[in-house]
Amino acid sequence: MFAEYDVIVVGAGHAGCEAAAAAANMGSKVLLITMNMQTIAQMSCNPAMGGIAKGQIVREIDALGGYSGIVTDKSMIQFRMLNKSKGPAMWSPRAQNDRMLFAATWRQMLEQTPNVDFYQDMVRELILKNGKACGVVTQLGHTIAAKAVVVTSGTFLNGVIHIGEKQFGGGRVAEKAATGITEQLVAQGMEASRLKTGTPPRVDGRSLDYSKMEEQQGDTEITGFSYLPNTVPITAAQQRSCYITYTNTTVHDILKTGFDRSPMFQGRIEGVGPRYCPSIEDKINRFAERDRHQLFVEPEGWNTVEIYVNGFSTSLPEEVQIQALQQVPGFENCKIFRPGYAIEYDFFPPTQLTHALETKAIQNLFFAGQINGTTGYEEAACQGIMAGMNAHLKINGQAPFILKRSEAYIGVLIDDLISKGTEEPYRMFTSRAEYRTLLRQDNADLRLTEISYRLGLASQERMEGVRKKQAAVAAITEQLQQYAIEPDAINEYLNSIQSAPLSEKQKAAKLLLRPSVTLTDMLPHLTDLQQGLQHHLPEYLEQAEIQIKYERYIAKEQELVEKMNVMEDLLIPENFDYDRLQALSSEARQKFKKVQPRTIGQAGRISGVNPSDIQILMVYMGR
Amino acid sequence: MFAEYDVIVVGAGHAGCEAAAAAANMGSKVLLITMNMQTIAQMSCNPAMGGIAKGQIVREIDALGGYSGIVTDKSMIQFRMLNKSKGPAMWSPRAQNDRMLFAATWRQMLEQTPNVDFYQDMVRELILKNGKACGVVTQLGHTIAAKAVVVTSGTFLNGVIHIGEKQFGGGRVAEKAATGITEQLVAQGMEASRLKTGTPPRVDGRSLDYSKMEEQQGDTEITGFSYLPNTVPITAAQQRSCYITYTNTTVHDILKTGFDRSPMFQGRIEGVGPRYCPSIEDKINRFAERDRHQLFVEPEGWNTVEIYVNGFSTSLPEEVQIQALQQVPGFENCKIFRPGYAIEYDFFPPTQLTHALETKAIQNLFFAGQINGTTGYEEAACQGIMAGMNAHLKINGQAPFILKRSEAYIGVLIDDLISKGTEEPYRMFTSRAEYRTLLRQDNADLRLTEISYRLGLASQERMEGVRKKQAAVAAITEQLQQYAIEPDAINEYLNSIQSAPLSEKQKAAKLLLRPSVTLTDMLPHLTDLQQGLQHHLPEYLEQAEIQIKYERYIAKEQELVEKMNVMEDLLIPENFDYDRLQALSSEARQKFKKVQPRTIGQAGRISGVNPSDIQILMVYMGR
Repeated sequence: MFAEYDVIVVGAGHAGCEAAAAAANMGSKVLLITMNMQTIAQMSCNPAMGGIAKGQIVREIDALGGYSGIVTDKSMIQFRMLNKSKGPAMWSPRAQNDRMLFAATWRQMLEQTPNVDFYQDMVRELILKNGKACGVVTQLGHTIAAKAVVVTSGTFLNGVIHIGEKQFGGGRVAEKAATGITEQLVAQGMEASRLKTGTPPRVDGRSLDYSKMEEQQGDTEITGFSYLPNTVPITAAQQRSCYITYTNTTVHDILKTGFDRSPMFQGRIEGVGPRYCPSIEDKINRFAERDRHQLFVEPEGWNTVEIYVNGFSTSLPEEVQIQALQQVPGFENCKIFRPGYAIEYDFFPPTQLTHALETKAIQNLFFAGQINGTTGYEEAACQGIMAGMNAHLKINGQAPFILKRSEAYIGVLIDDLISKGTEEPYRMFTSRAEYRTLLRQDNADLRLTEISYRLGLASQERMEGVRKKQAAVAAITEQLQQYAIEPDAINEYLNSIQSAPLSEKQKAAKLLLRPSVTLTDMLPHLTDLQQGLQHHLPEYLEQAEIQIKYERYIAKEQELVEKMNVMEDLLIPENFDYDRLQALSSEARQKFKKVQPRTIGQAGRISGVNPSDIQILMVYMGR
Repeated sequence: MFAEYDVIVVGAGHAGCEAAAAAANMGSKVLLITMNMQTIAQMSCNPAMGGIAKGQIVREIDALGGYSGIVTDKSMIQFRMLNKSKGPAMWSPRAQNDRMLFAATWRQMLEQTPNVDFYQDMVRELILKNGKACGVVTQLGHTIAAKAVVVTSGTFLNGVIHIGEKQFGGGRVAEKAATGITEQLVAQGMEASRLKTGTPPRVDGRSLDYSKMEEQQGDTEITGFSYLPNTVPITAAQQRSCYITYTNTTVHDILKTGFDRSPMFQGRIEGVGPRYCPSIEDKINRFAERDRHQLFVEPEGWNTVEIYVNGFSTSLPEEVQIQALQQVPGFENCKIFRPGYAIEYDFFPPTQLTHALETKAIQNLFFAGQINGTTGYEEAACQGIMAGMNAHLKINGQAPFILKRSEAYIGVLIDDLISKGTEEPYRMFTSRAEYRTLLRQDNADLRLTEISYRLGLASQERMEGVRKKQAAVAAITEQLQQYAIEPDAINEYLNSIQSAPLSEKQKAAKLLLRPSVTLTDMLPHLTDLQQGLQHHLPEYLEQAEIQIKYERYIAKEQELVEKMNVMEDLLIPENFDYDRLQALSSEARQKFKKVQPRTIGQAGRISGVNPSDIQILMVYMGR
């Protein structure tokens, strides 16, 4: 009853939705299979996108032509650019979203993507022929053929939910778990393991006293996530506030009364949880010296009183959750809508994947999202777009699309997963990227759109936007380099910011190198320059300013990239026989055989591999 | 961790939502418990409200101060007043709704109802003390106390889903079933049984060819469901169309190839399905002589391509569903989103209830919706509001609120259920009401708002609206009774509609008695009368016209009501000992003991009871 598809995507969360959109927009006929069409693109955890490092990833997805940035823009109720006081490498956009609107917008965008078909059913088996994935079998017994399959199972594969001493099967609360795929792939020789994640209670906003919390308003200017124009439908004044409050020792003491019934502490949960997004019980256990932890009180949308208590993720017994919560300032009369819970699910250690996110064991089978051991919507979504693109490229006989660590956070994420594996839910940080001065949120389009455009994903409109930006930035830079500032014009401003006055003319570009001088503050004193630049968009001016101000740092990092690229370009032959290199440490040999690094650079990043092992490898390869 | 509530409502479908809103608005502290807060007020079946008899019910719910009418108005994508060519007793409003918007609107209205709290969990047990319900126990192990409990379990109690030869537990596809309550109540001596219902496939609107179907547009004027002003946010021009197409013998032949795997025909489904909303396989089986059946092609919302194929409910194997569907004109290239399926669930034969929808076996325990054997959103919602009101009245020591058969379709529905029971899903029809000239959609507010207002549910605003309408209608009627029409003014109009011309002056009210004369057509010929009336709302003019035109029919029916009320007022003492009446037929004695009729009138409506039994009863009671 089904025609053959090019690509079947299993699961319609952040990873699955991006995978489906990407493959379809590149020209593949795609079937997106979900267990429930009402829950496409659910935000299972907090109603927010972006944040430090994660915001950069959403910008990268957008630059590639993915939908996450647009959906986030269309459904945001608050926007903030984090770390604005630091250098631009640290700037990170973050949005609070309307949970229902976010999901509805994703679904609407997918429905408007001509090559995406939908089907509601559970995939219980993959069809494998000659070591290749070529379709799926569903719970209803349908066999659906496809040239490639992308599995994005989230927390659904053999999901088990824990709250206190209760445990029950489920992919999310009140939703069924998915079964079959793990068992099949393990029988095929793949390795599967368990991870754990959790979510905090949701409470009734009508029962909170916000006067006891700190208000956190949105920015006065919303720049948004997408590089496309006009994607944010709200004004800064329309934004909704979040609130900040804190736990205290009374809260901690109450929480401790539940430890004897904690599924985490009593060993009922085997899977490892996300280190950087720990449960509240974990926090008070691991950081016993701290007498308070911050909680973000996040509204779930425009029209709901439901509140997400970010920072209070827990699987303690529910009565302990609520008793403890009621000791938090502002939560004295708090009513709970839904308890927090933990969920354990299957993942496949990602060293079993190629850089294209294809499994090494089974051709044309791609994995993205939590199945690869990551945590986070953004981490899932970026793997989704990469898996969708690579599935399309693979079945069309094209080379895989791999982003280098120096090109994108996405490249860092995938290389980390593939080379180092993970034993706990992997989350992105700026510190994971060695070239973060290059990987900024402001230039993801300059870094990535053209590559994606050439591969057939990023649209003509996006490409034109980038060309316009490039041209404008070049023109602005030229003007700033040419324009000579008279001391008389600028010294008053320089004095006002305690910066040394000019004694002779200086080029505007040069003055901008001073850390305390900003283009925005400088321009009003240079009316003719200001007039010459005023037709440019603020983001173009900002881009030129960043490129000028940080030129030396950028150049230095670029130099490093080029040095390291020598290693990245040193390809290791496929199926290289490491057993022939007796001088290798046995750990290195074992890891090399498992990971099968593509390049000397990647080989060096594998944990447990020493520089001496790399030297042996290079000597053998004739270097 | 929970305070004691006045009323706990179990389940947040149409019945549960109305019950929670009603009890809360009357002043009870209400806890609405749902298995999933994301699925409050889901339209599980077709995305439409109202229709013949059902539209009248929604108007009655609205007149009482329920929310269904307002929610329907706010989320409608199309409105039609059915049967407009017939007499006003048959006029029935019907709306097509945006499925997601309907649910979101309900949730928003409930969140804005101060006395309603929410909690996400499954109720697995009722707390019973001294034959009284006084709380619930949840799956997470919480004990929550309440003075009364309303159970609205829909299809979730021990729900089993069937598609072809597949069957699996679930309350809806991909949602878990609920367990525990049936077993507990059966152990308490209550009787439970199984019913079945079904839903058709949902398909991809992009794959349909509408040029092969008949378009069905909305009305040129939207009057809506609520008696409150300004509840419909759309204009007639914004409406979306539905389409009509038909099955044919090829479709039927393909469907028949699945009969050997049909869960209905092969005995895997034990529950009886809705007679008047049969599956397509049922239709071609029972009406083998018909070579086609009508299908309504209904959009699921403003922004989705998903389509509901109304009339094609089925639990045949999915490949048979799609193969057959592809033979329907316009569906040649149809792609399926979700298959149709059947679901079996527990219900409690409703003769176990009082007219207040309270169980006879357990005090303060109320049932509403499918648990009572009904089918339909409207049937569920009206039981919900009545159960919610009665729960509030009961715990406040007030008399139950019972609507007579002559007062409302709701009265007919509940009396039918309580007195006659049902062995198949009960659906409302105009033919079930003996006083349908009185029970019109245009006068539900005049019939019901004041009663509800006095009980504390209908708002001041509603009451004032009714008083305004009453006063206006009286004034209009007075004017029409006073105004004498000159033959010269009206005869041209009368000739044009082939109605006998006037030879002398006649009062406007009298001329309106002619079936072919309408106020709207008559007024332009009587400019001074028109001017005198033009400040009145169209609905006031319509109401006056209906009351004048159908006065004789209304009066006749009213007379009948009064006669019958003699019987309805003859109360049978509680715990009457029918065994003492040896002359009763044994069937009548058995039924009386089971149903425990409140009045002689109700006793007479019990199936199997003969007039002679009633006479014996009346003689004994001294009549």
